[in-house]
Amino acid sequence: MSTAPPFDDVVRAIRSARTVFLTVHQRPDGDALGTQIALAMACSRLGLRVTMANEDPVPARYRFLPWSRRIRTGAAGLPRRFDLAFTLECATPARAGVCGAVARRAKVLVNMDHHLGNRGYGDINLVDPTTPAEVLLAEALRLRLGMPLTRDIATAFYVGLYTETGGFRYSNTTAEVLNLASRLVEAGVNPRDVGEAVYECFPVRRLKLLGRSLGTLDVADGVAWMHLSRRDFTDFGAAEVDAEDFVEYPRAIGGVKVAVFLRETPGGDVRASLRAKASLPLNRVAQRFGGGGHAYAAGCTLARTTIAEARRKLAPALRAAMNKAAKR
Amino acid sequence: MSTAPPFDDVVRAIRSARTVFLTVHQRPDGDALGTQIALAMACSRLGLRVTMANEDPVPARYRFLPWSRRIRTGAAGLPRRFDLAFTLECATPARAGVCGAVARRAKVLVNMDHHLGNRGYGDINLVDPTTPAEVLLAEALRLRLGMPLTRDIATAFYVGLYTETGGFRYSNTTAEVLNLASRLVEAGVNPRDVGEAVYECFPVRRLKLLGRSLGTLDVADGVAWMHLSRRDFTDFGAAEVDAEDFVEYPRAIGGVKVAVFLRETPGGDVRASLRAKASLPLNRVAQRFGGGGHAYAAGCTLARTTIAEARRKLAPALRAAMNKAAKR
Repeated sequence: MSTAPPFDDVVRAIRSARTVFLTVHQRPDGDALGTQIALAMACSRLGLRVTMANEDPVPARYRFLPWSRRIRTGAAGLPRRFDLAFTLECATPARAGVCGAVARRAKVLVNMDHHLGNRGYGDINLVDPTTPAEVLLAEALRLRLGMPLTRDIATAFYVGLYTETGGFRYSNTTAEVLNLASRLVEAGVNPRDVGEAVYECFPVRRLKLLGRSLGTLDVADGVAWMHLSRRDFTDFGAAEVDAEDFVEYPRAIGGVKVAVFLRETPGGDVRASLRAKASLPLNRVAQRFGGGGHAYAAGCTLARTTIAEARRKLAPALRAAMNKAAKR
Repeated sequence: MSTAPPFDDVVRAIRSARTVFLTVHQRPDGDALGTQIALAMACSRLGLRVTMANEDPVPARYRFLPWSRRIRTGAAGLPRRFDLAFTLECATPARAGVCGAVARRAKVLVNMDHHLGNRGYGDINLVDPTTPAEVLLAEALRLRLGMPLTRDIATAFYVGLYTETGGFRYSNTTAEVLNLASRLVEAGVNPRDVGEAVYECFPVRRLKLLGRSLGTLDVADGVAWMHLSRRDFTDFGAAEVDAEDFVEYPRAIGGVKVAVFLRETPGGDVRASLRAKASLPLNRVAQRFGGGGHAYAAGCTLARTTIAEARRKLAPALRAAMNKAAKR
């Protein structure tokens, strides 16, 4: 697939529709939500009746976004059929859960995704895995639609860029990303406010939990290990979401090649988050345990086991991957 | 002082000099070092003999920078007099310690600073407190000198922008900052590598110390308090530098207006770092205890006291500042 993304087809579809439905994947992130809201605003300005609904609720950190309260949770009460629907960042419609089924019933389905592995299931497939963030696809659409870059649309875009690049830090922080970010700030975005809302609005229990977990930090053979037991979560009245991105802390240790964060799930399994600093096929390691992901970032769940046992299983697989990479 | 910064005077001074000396303030940061190195490279390309020296050594996190090893520590063995000298980010020459004295002896001294409160002590004062980062002044000079934006110069600039804006997160993250960042990436900078070198190269003891400190976290009346005793430092064989920026963690708690990080110094005092989310005159609070800083970020040292006593003294002062701000 090296054909140009069919932006013009999407523009035509938007211009001929009266109702539009927008949905994103389960456990939505900033890039998906930013795209959803920005497209909703643009379509609304063009006179379409806009409906947004997702399988899962908008996480607290994104509720400062304009229009985030207009995103419904679940498919209850939605019209049977829309003129047009967008599935955003969904490799398959099933990734959007019940809302994916609603999207499939639309007269025209636009499948819009910047990830590898998309199945091309839409009537129009605006799929480009070379694009660093979904909002860049939306910005290209906005330009073609001739919609102004309002401060609200710019804020939604900025949240997408900022979170998808880990705060302009990951390898997808391209010149294009920073250039758009600059134009968004010109359009009125306050980077400090966005940063504060998204990354500086944690509950105390998260930091307490982090403190507990940092106490378990252990580095061996270039791998930094950190974990949390069920007990740790219950001690602080914390949920799994409170430990989000904890794997970034062991990753920040000098000389470490791989970081692993292990946590006991409420179901009695152990969930492993893996991060590499250099390019390592971590996804292949994760796949061996029924998981998946990217070369730099992957995850898997080890069923019915303990933290210690999970480490015993993962350590040799990681060592093998690192040895193999070192030989290349 | 609303006159335009005298860029052309500096360009003329560079073009007429054969030797140049560049120095920065004590405890140098990324913005000062990035500017120093980029200017050194540009001057060298123009045929000048370049000497860099600072009072304090280059911190480990910046040693990946090209030419960072050419920066000498201290003034020993330096030539008596240079044709041209730059003091970078120094409100007074004394801020550069012994190297400031060397700079003052130069035939022409350029005082280049983007902070408020600069005394204007140079033969040429390239001082502009409206500029978000020192490297932006250096970039303006580069353009006027007609020097190419090499990958090495771009990397030095990027480190300055990135660190001075707290990873493109502080209120000085302007459209201009992000636009230059975009052009630097185009010139070959790898944002991931820079982020990793600067913010992901911590020793294990830092994270252990952080874990210990997070255990002390306590929120009362909109203020988040966190501390470390001498014992905590010695338990992990940690130094004060290992607790750098710890105050950012309590600041990241939702609903908190002020964050305070207290640590016992080796001398038996308590050092307080204060951070506000909204605009509060924290500097005035710090000044009451003999410290200083900005409205958002300030610090002070409470002599011969304990963590508990320091908190007892600071709490009412902070409460008064918050009440006053709320009434405005």
